[in-house]
Amino acid sequence: MGGDFGPRSIVQACVASLSATPSLHLTLVGQPSLLEELIASHPAVDRARLSIVPASETITMDEKPAAALRGKPDSSMRVALELLRDGKVQACVSAGNTGALMALSRHVLKTLPGIDRPAMVAAIPTQTGYCQLLDLGANVDCSAEHLFQFAVMGSVAAQALGVARPRVALLNIGTEDIKGNQQVKLAATLLQGARGLNYIGFVEGDGLYRGEADVVVCDGFVGNILLKSSEGLATMIATRIESLFRQSLVSRLVGALALPLMRRLQADLAPARHNGASFLGLQGIVVKSHGSAGVEGFQSAIARAVIELQENLPQRLHGRLEDLLP
Amino acid sequence: MGGDFGPRSIVQACVASLSATPSLHLTLVGQPSLLEELIASHPAVDRARLSIVPASETITMDEKPAAALRGKPDSSMRVALELLRDGKVQACVSAGNTGALMALSRHVLKTLPGIDRPAMVAAIPTQTGYCQLLDLGANVDCSAEHLFQFAVMGSVAAQALGVARPRVALLNIGTEDIKGNQQVKLAATLLQGARGLNYIGFVEGDGLYRGEADVVVCDGFVGNILLKSSEGLATMIATRIESLFRQSLVSRLVGALALPLMRRLQADLAPARHNGASFLGLQGIVVKSHGSAGVEGFQSAIARAVIELQENLPQRLHGRLEDLLP
Repeated sequence: MGGDFGPRSIVQACVASLSATPSLHLTLVGQPSLLEELIASHPAVDRARLSIVPASETITMDEKPAAALRGKPDSSMRVALELLRDGKVQACVSAGNTGALMALSRHVLKTLPGIDRPAMVAAIPTQTGYCQLLDLGANVDCSAEHLFQFAVMGSVAAQALGVARPRVALLNIGTEDIKGNQQVKLAATLLQGARGLNYIGFVEGDGLYRGEADVVVCDGFVGNILLKSSEGLATMIATRIESLFRQSLVSRLVGALALPLMRRLQADLAPARHNGASFLGLQGIVVKSHGSAGVEGFQSAIARAVIELQENLPQRLHGRLEDLLP
Repeated sequence: MGGDFGPRSIVQACVASLSATPSLHLTLVGQPSLLEELIASHPAVDRARLSIVPASETITMDEKPAAALRGKPDSSMRVALELLRDGKVQACVSAGNTGALMALSRHVLKTLPGIDRPAMVAAIPTQTGYCQLLDLGANVDCSAEHLFQFAVMGSVAAQALGVARPRVALLNIGTEDIKGNQQVKLAATLLQGARGLNYIGFVEGDGLYRGEADVVVCDGFVGNILLKSSEGLATMIATRIESLFRQSLVSRLVGALALPLMRRLQADLAPARHNGASFLGLQGIVVKSHGSAGVEGFQSAIARAVIELQENLPQRLHGRLEDLLP
């Protein structure tokens, strides 16, 4: 029921995902009459693979996490997470209120042993491929121990996604040992002593985009600002390119020719493509789609959930955490 | 004597600035024999407006601020700041070690009354113009009071740069009141109560680039990460555009036609153009040029110092601070 565009675009994304992935089954959780109405506009959908579980309440985008936790026992978000906890579904995807989703996930699913707080991670495009950036906003204030746990989780997630020996770095405002705040410096000391982790040291904001690391760790305040400012800058550059191509007859001609190239670039950088952000460290797979992502974004969030399921990410995390955590 | 490229590119930038600004006088501080040698390769320069003051020591780029403060009484950086304090020059520009420059500036020049810590500010290009972003890395951990002081200083600086009623915002991970860490929430309360300040609330990373505010306030850790990651992303996008234009014969042709447009865009976004970052809150004008900025960057840092001098920025700050600070 969540997201800035509401359930309409979510239903549309579900229909597209079902036809793209024949083995996929989806359960929609929310107001049955509304959902049935939205599904009705897609008569070709395979209803054998698309079911509805009713939930009478909805958590709004600006609701406080604590209120969502206590006040709404039959919210669509909570019911979906309870289905996951009870083994009725194998992953949960939401475009709703991030803080509420995190609070409910921790409460309903619990964290893996050794993990204090789940983290939000997403793949960010770099000069050489992708890096997994975490935390993206679930944890505003983080201790060195939290950053250490994020590094361990990010490393395991990157491995599950195909990186053999992920280079793990801490995001900092310099690469020298003396730089940064207390939490970052202390986390560096913890990571230097961790067996079996390919910790490469500090990386700066520009180093992240140069592809210096496969996993970049920071607190949720910094990660969220980095992600959103990057989205804003990419949009600004795209807008400026378009306006450059509109300035004269010659530039309009060039623009018309360059348009397919620019579209390819934008698709490559589009946050919606990469915005299936996972919650790592829970006893279950939870993927958060950007609230304003629309159909394509929610579809890629479902795709990320499918990959994590195929790779047994929570089980792999659980196994590796026991070796890596002190 | 500082910067990643050393005094050679600084001397070059000084020569260019002198010919661009006929009323400008520059004093180079450092090793006289080396500086004379570098000046000698510019025989056309007006030596009546370019003097040298000797300093026997140099602060290295990785030197700890405390060591720079205590250990090197005759460093080029310290001598330059002492010239400023003693009224022999009217502004100081450096491409050296940021932490050392900040520590020495505070020690030699002192802060303005009511200011605990100076902040680093620079103009960031947005969809609608520029925003003054501060702090950019001088203050890693900031209290709500520090953020409040930054907001006041940023507002006054934006006014001096020509914005009649600067919209001042706090950088946060959401625009709702409940979002963010304690410092940001408390700073919001302080700013809401400030007379004569056009505080507009929270802005997110993407809102900054949409041009939602003229002054955006954050701690130095966040600001530095935002600035450097933006530089890294802009470089990555430029690289990708170039490689797109190299993929086929048609795209090469389009690329050749689009090249002048792309160059204009890059010049517009280039961090070197906007990298004259000022230290606000000191009893004197200090501008920090990016260490890796090269000639153009150092020249724009000198240009920013000239503007601040013409606008009497420290004096204006001093006058306004008394009204605005609680």
